[in-house]
Amino acid sequence: MAQNIYDNPDFFAGYSQLPRQVEGLAAAPEWPALRAMLPELAGKRVVDLGCGFGWFARWARSAGAAAVLGLDLSQAMIARARAETTDAAIRYAIADLDTLELAAGAFDLAYSSLAFHYLADFGRLARTVHQALVPGGAFIFSIEHPIYMAASHPHWTADEDGRKTWPVNRYAIEGERRTDWFAKGVVKYHRTIATTLNTLIETGFALRRVGEFAPSAEQIAAQPSLEEELERPMMLLVSAQR
Amino acid sequence: MAQNIYDNPDFFAGYSQLPRQVEGLAAAPEWPALRAMLPELAGKRVVDLGCGFGWFARWARSAGAAAVLGLDLSQAMIARARAETTDAAIRYAIADLDTLELAAGAFDLAYSSLAFHYLADFGRLARTVHQALVPGGAFIFSIEHPIYMAASHPHWTADEDGRKTWPVNRYAIEGERRTDWFAKGVVKYHRTIATTLNTLIETGFALRRVGEFAPSAEQIAAQPSLEEELERPMMLLVSAQR
Repeated sequence: MAQNIYDNPDFFAGYSQLPRQVEGLAAAPEWPALRAMLPELAGKRVVDLGCGFGWFARWARSAGAAAVLGLDLSQAMIARARAETTDAAIRYAIADLDTLELAAGAFDLAYSSLAFHYLADFGRLARTVHQALVPGGAFIFSIEHPIYMAASHPHWTADEDGRKTWPVNRYAIEGERRTDWFAKGVVKYHRTIATTLNTLIETGFALRRVGEFAPSAEQIAAQPSLEEELERPMMLLVSAQR
Repeated sequence: MAQNIYDNPDFFAGYSQLPRQVEGLAAAPEWPALRAMLPELAGKRVVDLGCGFGWFARWARSAGAAAVLGLDLSQAMIARARAETTDAAIRYAIADLDTLELAAGAFDLAYSSLAFHYLADFGRLARTVHQALVPGGAFIFSIEHPIYMAASHPHWTADEDGRKTWPVNRYAIEGERRTDWFAKGVVKYHRTIATTLNTLIETGFALRRVGEFAPSAEQIAAQPSLEEELERPMMLLVSAQR
């Protein structure tokens, strides 16, 4: 079973205060890029893998989705997500994405935000999603960018001009990475960009678009701290189609 | 017109001594990964974009290609390539990839090794190649990895444990990069991974495989200096299909 850091009280307390958890999708700077990858949602059946507090599930319904299934490993997350809606077309369930099973052809869209870097076996998940989508169905997700999470000590440094610089090492050495983020020893799994994309292709998906979040000039003007995200790729966004 | 650094005498003298120029494909550590992406070549018409001394053109003929067109901006390269073969099915021509034109449907395979990071406009080149391939034709190339070439000062550093570390900054800021490599002020053009892959998808190619060269244990045993290439992605390899 995957590490369930989200039900660690210290982690949950810190995580729950992130702007994107308090304010929702509008506080996630990559959301406009991810939203632009989404198909028309009217009448669609959607599954959200790692749904957290349900911000995307509720948005998908407001965008016309017929039904949304939100899945998360965290009991605290699912409890809070359930408390946030009375919409009978949104269903939440506790599920471990490492052992997930989904009914064949049950969904038109599989969506996931910043969850798959916790998975030990992305190939298994990709196959599960592929068979769960209708032909032509969309698989759209974000992960921490492999460049962001590869290094032994992932933190800003400076180059000889004092420019903010992100360190990369161990890039080709895939596997576990432990970091301290609201709690000690959060376990993530590094895979190269090539591994992630080739896994999708080999599973039978066609790649429709790849994104590497970078803030727009407008986003930087509104939130100057985002400017550093021009220096490094922090998130990888993928649009694939069955 | 593109900068023609290869006809700079200092550059040419140094470049000509690179193992891969002296010994050919076997001295290029990424060649096994690139070769594995190639289709069966028997009877195929091949164009090599940035053919240099013609090592790939001669190999393609030995692998059964019906005809090979090698194109390069450098007069010195093309002169040397012509001197290295008497094979009438290999033709060489001087061409600037930034303004290249190719006949429609003239090729089954377009190949390029470490040339496109010199191009200001990859989109134009991708469209030129797409229309020059037959339907189902393959477009297989390597470039310097965007992570390798993004930073203002691309050179090894060390992290707090002394581990070799590659610096990344200016990743989202695409455009010209000037480096000193056998000559001062060699001009390259940085594009993100997303831009390169999306350009291919938008041009009508299907992505078949993405590679990020990393040396095998056997390669490191034979050439220990390659071990550092586990730390950073140095080359991006792409297999696309019209």
